[in-house]
Amino acid sequence: MNKSVSPADITLPKGVKDFLPLKAAKIVYLRQTLLDIFSRWGFRPVIPPSMEYLSVLERGLGAALQAKTVRFDDRQSGQLVTFTPDITPQVARIVATRMREMPLPLRLSYYGRALRHEEQQQGKDREIFQAGVELYGIDGAEADAEMIAMAIEALQALGVEKFTIDIGQVEFCRGIMEQLELPAEQLARISEAIAHKDNSGLRRLLEQSELPPPQVAEVEALPRLFGGVEVLDRAAEAVKNERSQKALTNLRQVLDVLKVYGLEQYVTFDLGEMQGLDYHTGITFQGYIPGYGQAICAGGRYDRLTAVYGYPVPATGFTFNLLNLLFAHDRQLDDVVGETTDLLISQSGEDKQLAQRIARAVRQQGLSAARDMVSRTFEQSVDYASKMNFRYVMTVAGESEVKLHSIADSSEKTVSIEAIFAGNLELS
Amino acid sequence: MNKSVSPADITLPKGVKDFLPLKAAKIVYLRQTLLDIFSRWGFRPVIPPSMEYLSVLERGLGAALQAKTVRFDDRQSGQLVTFTPDITPQVARIVATRMREMPLPLRLSYYGRALRHEEQQQGKDREIFQAGVELYGIDGAEADAEMIAMAIEALQALGVEKFTIDIGQVEFCRGIMEQLELPAEQLARISEAIAHKDNSGLRRLLEQSELPPPQVAEVEALPRLFGGVEVLDRAAEAVKNERSQKALTNLRQVLDVLKVYGLEQYVTFDLGEMQGLDYHTGITFQGYIPGYGQAICAGGRYDRLTAVYGYPVPATGFTFNLLNLLFAHDRQLDDVVGETTDLLISQSGEDKQLAQRIARAVRQQGLSAARDMVSRTFEQSVDYASKMNFRYVMTVAGESEVKLHSIADSSEKTVSIEAIFAGNLELS
Repeated sequence: MNKSVSPADITLPKGVKDFLPLKAAKIVYLRQTLLDIFSRWGFRPVIPPSMEYLSVLERGLGAALQAKTVRFDDRQSGQLVTFTPDITPQVARIVATRMREMPLPLRLSYYGRALRHEEQQQGKDREIFQAGVELYGIDGAEADAEMIAMAIEALQALGVEKFTIDIGQVEFCRGIMEQLELPAEQLARISEAIAHKDNSGLRRLLEQSELPPPQVAEVEALPRLFGGVEVLDRAAEAVKNERSQKALTNLRQVLDVLKVYGLEQYVTFDLGEMQGLDYHTGITFQGYIPGYGQAICAGGRYDRLTAVYGYPVPATGFTFNLLNLLFAHDRQLDDVVGETTDLLISQSGEDKQLAQRIARAVRQQGLSAARDMVSRTFEQSVDYASKMNFRYVMTVAGESEVKLHSIADSSEKTVSIEAIFAGNLELS
Repeated sequence: MNKSVSPADITLPKGVKDFLPLKAAKIVYLRQTLLDIFSRWGFRPVIPPSMEYLSVLERGLGAALQAKTVRFDDRQSGQLVTFTPDITPQVARIVATRMREMPLPLRLSYYGRALRHEEQQQGKDREIFQAGVELYGIDGAEADAEMIAMAIEALQALGVEKFTIDIGQVEFCRGIMEQLELPAEQLARISEAIAHKDNSGLRRLLEQSELPPPQVAEVEALPRLFGGVEVLDRAAEAVKNERSQKALTNLRQVLDVLKVYGLEQYVTFDLGEMQGLDYHTGITFQGYIPGYGQAICAGGRYDRLTAVYGYPVPATGFTFNLLNLLFAHDRQLDDVVGETTDLLISQSGEDKQLAQRIARAVRQQGLSAARDMVSRTFEQSVDYASKMNFRYVMTVAGESEVKLHSIADSSEKTVSIEAIFAGNLELS
């Protein structure tokens, strides 16, 4: 403990951060507001542990997340243990192993931090703050629409004015791709070109492929099928296979429910979207705030996840990425998340009894207050209060009155201590 | 993902748990209430990352916590990375490296989850949920007393009626132990006997030690110096060295401040207490609820911790162990943390528009509501609502009224939809 240290030695692993008070208060606010909204929609919290056996967790992770899973050799069990990279498979495990006797549907919410290996040239967060919900036991479009409606209403409750929810359907793509009789490697390159909306690269790949013209036409259409509601009509004309058509019907049903909620103006469609996690089986969606490139929320249907833990139940859900939401919506949160404390209460002399009793009374009234425990002049107290975002300096002098100095405008007034003990301190 | 699985294979590492809705809701409530109280006392949140470089974090950890630190080889940096076993050293690092320009004192709070290796025969939690505060820059007893007062008022705000705060002072013990000219191993055995209040074992060790009688008397007194305020008088008579006497003076000062707060009836003293963490330098304290053996909160003074990160500042703080608090106070939390949802809203037929609009209206009014999306009979809905702790089933039939069925007493009434849209739904 006694080694000396230079600040340059004190660094954090790339991809994780310290959050100082203002940003931290915003994260606390986002967490609390989202959990309140989830509760208002009838969702109840579960808390899975931060670590699990790799052999258990990896059943619920697709290849992409398995590759990002942080793992270590647990000296107590002699087994490989992981820090979870995603909370959804954990909730699925809880439902499958500990909540089978509950009637369906089940509505569950969670807040937690997940860890991932991420290539650092991309500057991605390795620690992800997630707050999300899962709805188990309903396989209709109505449940998927409820997830999207919740995401939208949560964003509105947080004061986010401009955003879009971009909806995809993994079955639409799969319906097209499953027809293609091509080697896996070639399929992967085609998928990648679609995901990157690389039209010319995709055309080259298709020309080399010797696929029949109707299939080429369907694949070529994919990266162009994004935009407003009209995309669904264009898709119906361009793509004829049954699996993709069923996916379109599902999307129309979701849209119909969203129209009832009056929320259809917030959604766009991207049928070439392949960014769902490996466990998704139907619609997927991502929420974006203009000017910020990463999704602030993401979700979708995953009907086969609980089955890997022995209990097949259809499911749909979504999660907010709190850090993306924080950075995309940072400035607007300044208005709702104050980093202020109402009162700095100062009493000179040895006897601090009155200041302590006053502090107690104003806190019971719901105000925030810290006592000034340092011996210093009034000017020094005001200087400290100003730098630390206090709203008032309260000076306890006599037995009957205190002086209240406003940091904002330096105005002063006296207040009777009797009024304070009666719970009637009024701050403007 | 397609391997079949039997529930017996699906286990969690020992020492970590899943929290299902009722317990999880209580943890959420404890976290939120404590962070609110901290904020009311002028403390502002920081959020350190879950993982840090071992070389950085271990500077702030004593030997005991270093041995419990979970670490892994980070393939991205090639360095050893740890999952933090304790948040206090992280906050100290943040203050020392990123908040030096802030005027003192600094009041900071945090909530987080820490991981430790624990021997599993003791059944200890390996994942620890901590919510705590740190006060930097004040070295007087007044600051220590403020920590204890906060802990007590937080427990009162949580409705904990019976509890004790047991106060120790590491300098009191150190004053006695530093006089003993004995080999380290013998000292360690003596310390252990004191910590376990093993009076006969301690006597044997002292008889073998050939220490001068006055020193033997001081050491023998230690495990008996616990109890009420009178312990301080007994200690002053039994122990004469200057370092221990200074520790007693400090304890009296803390007690004097607690008397002003009217909180002295909650505190006991244990001068043989050696359970502080290695970084403690003055008073330490632990809170206990009768009937539960583990501390629900713990803290103390640590004046040399930020110095290991290059910025020496006196500090005091404490943390709640949320899981110990949960299990010690579980039953009483039933009264404040409901796992209920106000309304299950059911509408038969294809058209669910009205149910959706009503759900939206009641949520805006602050009620919690889920829509019944499953096609089922009214009796089945009531059965589901009852098992899942809903308070009412609302059935949307006509255009102007809904039926409200109480789960508690099966009473029914009709409510006009107009009143609901006006935000006037009254539930008893």
